[in-house]
Amino acid sequence: MIKNFIVVASGKGGVGKSTVSLNLSVSLASQKYKVGLLDADIYGPSMPRMMGISEKPSADKNKKILPYNKFSIKAMSIGNMIPEDKAIIWRGAMASSAIKQLLNDVQWGDLDFLIIDLPPGTGDIQLSLCQNLSITGAVIVSTPQEVSLIDVRKAISMFKKVNVPILGIVQNMSYLESDGSKNYIFGKDGALKESEKQKFKFLGDIPINPEICKSCDNGKPIVINKKLELHKIFNEISNRLINTISNNKNTEVKITN
Amino acid sequence: MIKNFIVVASGKGGVGKSTVSLNLSVSLASQKYKVGLLDADIYGPSMPRMMGISEKPSADKNKKILPYNKFSIKAMSIGNMIPEDKAIIWRGAMASSAIKQLLNDVQWGDLDFLIIDLPPGTGDIQLSLCQNLSITGAVIVSTPQEVSLIDVRKAISMFKKVNVPILGIVQNMSYLESDGSKNYIFGKDGALKESEKQKFKFLGDIPINPEICKSCDNGKPIVINKKLELHKIFNEISNRLINTISNNKNTEVKITN
Repeated sequence: MIKNFIVVASGKGGVGKSTVSLNLSVSLASQKYKVGLLDADIYGPSMPRMMGISEKPSADKNKKILPYNKFSIKAMSIGNMIPEDKAIIWRGAMASSAIKQLLNDVQWGDLDFLIIDLPPGTGDIQLSLCQNLSITGAVIVSTPQEVSLIDVRKAISMFKKVNVPILGIVQNMSYLESDGSKNYIFGKDGALKESEKQKFKFLGDIPINPEICKSCDNGKPIVINKKLELHKIFNEISNRLINTISNNKNTEVKITN
Repeated sequence: MIKNFIVVASGKGGVGKSTVSLNLSVSLASQKYKVGLLDADIYGPSMPRMMGISEKPSADKNKKILPYNKFSIKAMSIGNMIPEDKAIIWRGAMASSAIKQLLNDVQWGDLDFLIIDLPPGTGDIQLSLCQNLSITGAVIVSTPQEVSLIDVRKAISMFKKVNVPILGIVQNMSYLESDGSKNYIFGKDGALKESEKQKFKFLGDIPINPEICKSCDNGKPIVINKKLELHKIFNEISNRLINTISNNKNTEVKITN
């Protein structure tokens, strides 16, 4: 059984949604939760690269696809089923049915959380998922930029329409630290202010850091490096998320044995 | 008549595709070309904000929609037709037909170039546009990151399938300059190397600059500020683009009177 379906959404692409999905998953797993990660970004699946998984998936005797086990999480991505340089030019309906397969035909087993990395935007895939699953809630990722926040508002409006609660906003690429001072390249606190305005929980602030970029390209989630400040940052985000879910459900999120 | 349809594409979102589309358009217009800009990013249209246009569009007596005239270009965006905070939750087929309307029902008049800012990915809209229009070619925008280049390869594979020539690659967010030294936050020269490997023209290198972010949020294309190095950079990109098109067509791209 999967106890909580969490979608990670952004409206705009390229804001670090996959980075947040992956590191949030690994952080939750480090707290002993059972976590699955489904990369539903069918047009640009980043997980195979970001997790360093290049093998094709295998199936069990009942023809259920076996998820990958790495960094203490179970993971599956459409990117593992097709060559990396091939485009999926699927019409919306086909894309939605591919996602349905990833949900139903993968041997997820018992999970406390299935984190679903959504494609950017408010199209067929997002709509189908929200209509067909009982989603616990959505985590919104944004940079501080107004052009990113415009699309965040659209995504929030979509989730409201389909009755998916917003669990909070993560502000990514908040600032670049050099020589002790902070450079607000993409503007200051845009997403923080938006969360206050719309009365959503602010889940945390992730700085710009070339190490994050390297970790994505090298297939190792940054959160596993306990020496970095980023380790602490992602753990704080996952703690705040668990608290919000517990509050929303009026009951503590327990760890499955 | 529209002489050249240029699509600006990225595979991955958030890499600066809209910034390139807008500044490229304004730069071409400054060289006296007649330029139209169509924001086809139906799920996250950034142009209204980036061009500072908040009025609803008007129509002529034949019920053709009149494009906006600003910064010496004609422009239209789906974003001008709906409230900024509303999501368009359209199924793929509806999105494609909305784009067809923006192409056919807008009074574009004679243009040397119609620059079309595509949504990220390789879905219905991209497919329909490429199948229904005789596209001169595609400009690909990427950051130097491998996770961005993976999606670029997918986009290139799609354009090959539908016989749209690649006019070249623009590398955005290449480096952040501070105190005279360059910080390669998103890795170094990834898109440049990819263009060499795939034998596509490298159209140019755009640095990370908080001024670009400000200009996007404030509705003024950065290229109009002649004091900035970015003015020169975008003009070089548009010159290389014109040269590539002239070479491909074996004839000079002339300016319409």
